[in-house]
Amino acid sequence: MDYKDFINQDTEWLKGTGPSANIVMSSRVRLARNLDKVPFSNWADKGRLEDVLVAVKDAALSTGGLKNALFVRLKDLSEVDRLFLVERHLMSPEHAENVDYKAVVVDPKEIISVMINEEDHLRIQVLLSGSNLRECWKIADSLDTELSKKLAFAYSAKWGYLTACPTNTGTGLRGSVMLHLPALVFTGQIGKILQAIAKLGLNIRGLYGEGTDATGNIFQISNQVAMGITEEETIDNIERISNQVVSREDSTRKTILTKNKEALVDRISRALGTLKSAHIITSSETITLLSAIRLGVDLGIVKTMDRRTVNELFLLTQPAHLQELDGRPLNANERDVKRADLIRSKLK
Amino acid sequence: MDYKDFINQDTEWLKGTGPSANIVMSSRVRLARNLDKVPFSNWADKGRLEDVLVAVKDAALSTGGLKNALFVRLKDLSEVDRLFLVERHLMSPEHAENVDYKAVVVDPKEIISVMINEEDHLRIQVLLSGSNLRECWKIADSLDTELSKKLAFAYSAKWGYLTACPTNTGTGLRGSVMLHLPALVFTGQIGKILQAIAKLGLNIRGLYGEGTDATGNIFQISNQVAMGITEEETIDNIERISNQVVSREDSTRKTILTKNKEALVDRISRALGTLKSAHIITSSETITLLSAIRLGVDLGIVKTMDRRTVNELFLLTQPAHLQELDGRPLNANERDVKRADLIRSKLK
Repeated sequence: MDYKDFINQDTEWLKGTGPSANIVMSSRVRLARNLDKVPFSNWADKGRLEDVLVAVKDAALSTGGLKNALFVRLKDLSEVDRLFLVERHLMSPEHAENVDYKAVVVDPKEIISVMINEEDHLRIQVLLSGSNLRECWKIADSLDTELSKKLAFAYSAKWGYLTACPTNTGTGLRGSVMLHLPALVFTGQIGKILQAIAKLGLNIRGLYGEGTDATGNIFQISNQVAMGITEEETIDNIERISNQVVSREDSTRKTILTKNKEALVDRISRALGTLKSAHIITSSETITLLSAIRLGVDLGIVKTMDRRTVNELFLLTQPAHLQELDGRPLNANERDVKRADLIRSKLK
Repeated sequence: MDYKDFINQDTEWLKGTGPSANIVMSSRVRLARNLDKVPFSNWADKGRLEDVLVAVKDAALSTGGLKNALFVRLKDLSEVDRLFLVERHLMSPEHAENVDYKAVVVDPKEIISVMINEEDHLRIQVLLSGSNLRECWKIADSLDTELSKKLAFAYSAKWGYLTACPTNTGTGLRGSVMLHLPALVFTGQIGKILQAIAKLGLNIRGLYGEGTDATGNIFQISNQVAMGITEEETIDNIERISNQVVSREDSTRKTILTKNKEALVDRISRALGTLKSAHIITSSETITLLSAIRLGVDLGIVKTMDRRTVNELFLLTQPAHLQELDGRPLNANERDVKRADLIRSKLK
């Protein structure tokens, strides 16, 4: 299997399965680890970076979870190919820059990935559909345990795991859930909820990480700190608050269905009409419209489409996916036309 | 035939036939006349108004052009019925107010109408599809000649026909053409053209008369004054300038088709998609979208619809028409839902 074959399978974070999958799109656990006595990636020299790359690769591919995994050096990829992996959430946008000594290990199901020489030597990531944070943590923990038998991680009894950025020092754990909250946005409740979440020590941000907008009413909630708190507590914390937000979104959806159904049907139906007829469409507008349609599918208002098709479009309409499908680089205008063509043909 | 049966026929101004009908929606000539030695409508007492009403009715119904016409006293109509006649351009919005001594005579083809006791005792109107101003004038002139044999009109050798508003004094003629100018709006040329037209002594305004917006890219051009100029010159003037605007709109459409076809197709196709899927839609949005679709039909981009259907929707989606179709008064929210239902069913 080649990483390019991913395009023919449902990526894990958009499968639309798992608990509360109508609202919790996906759950993710990420562990930051560094090799003991080796400078962090941004300070290490080329020889050291190459050593790290080889050592982590060998260790990762010898674990149970990653023995069939794909290993890819990012310098062997085109820019589009790298963005393709970012769009599938298999690596961070930052990992696609300055790629000389960077690599990624990905299991063929796209559940586990290990970034090598991101700002930390290892970034272990486990991604599952739906509300599945605890399961993510179990998988990540077990992989971490296996890896720690082959690699010596930088660890201080006082500080915990040492990391390039102090916010990760401690457990090195970042847990996150991706929530689809159209009803809370539609009714204007989202502002207060975001404030409340921030006060509870959690971060909230958009679909593609820090600094990105919550396009498509998709919000990612994650822990702010990794020190002075155990892994279990971190997971508990996120899960508890996520459950509260989910329950609020759920009841708001029901209220809208009772009190404002016509306006909702109008909005969802128009979104579908626009996607079926546009000949030029940006990625951002596409996500906004797909968000409305996903809600329509979840509420049984859209019956001609299933969640799988919505999710497939979410991903295939992203810039790199469009270019992979077309087999050539496309500028923004060309992509807007191709995107509209693709959507119309899928919705015909 | 009852005026309510009009709803089952194509109203003249939206037939979409006649010269340059792709751009000139309709042409209209209106003559203002008053009975000699009778105060203007807004100054006359009830008895006098009633006398005028009866005299004009009798005279009108005895002419060749109006012998089969419908005569309607506006006080016998509901508010919705009056608005219905306004929407069909058979009378002015002003004529629907303070209706005690007002009436309208309409020929069954909806080409000729005579308002009685608007601000002038008679407002003779002739309306034809397409660029047909000269033909309108011929019909109006011949009716005026017939009427003048039965009614003594207020006329001064020095000033011409005397009218309530000085801008009509002289010939009493107002000629106008209704132009659909989406390409000039789309390319931003319309501003300069409006300025030029104003400098040439013509008025330009929106679809439903003075002070209304040019919703749906529809503009009405008419003469500003009726004194010091013959009827022939007035008609010539409007026709000449209208032809220039039409020719500019036409060439701009061709340029867009060559240089910017994709954006145009996108816009038109989205408009159709929205109309086919909306569940709540205002009259104003409807007109805007229908304008795009009319252009699409004219340019051969929309093939699933003809101009007749577009025009039918233009009219049937107006507030009073919707209420006539539904057989009961509807508030604005109810209309927005009914309108969307009607459009979806017509476009299915």
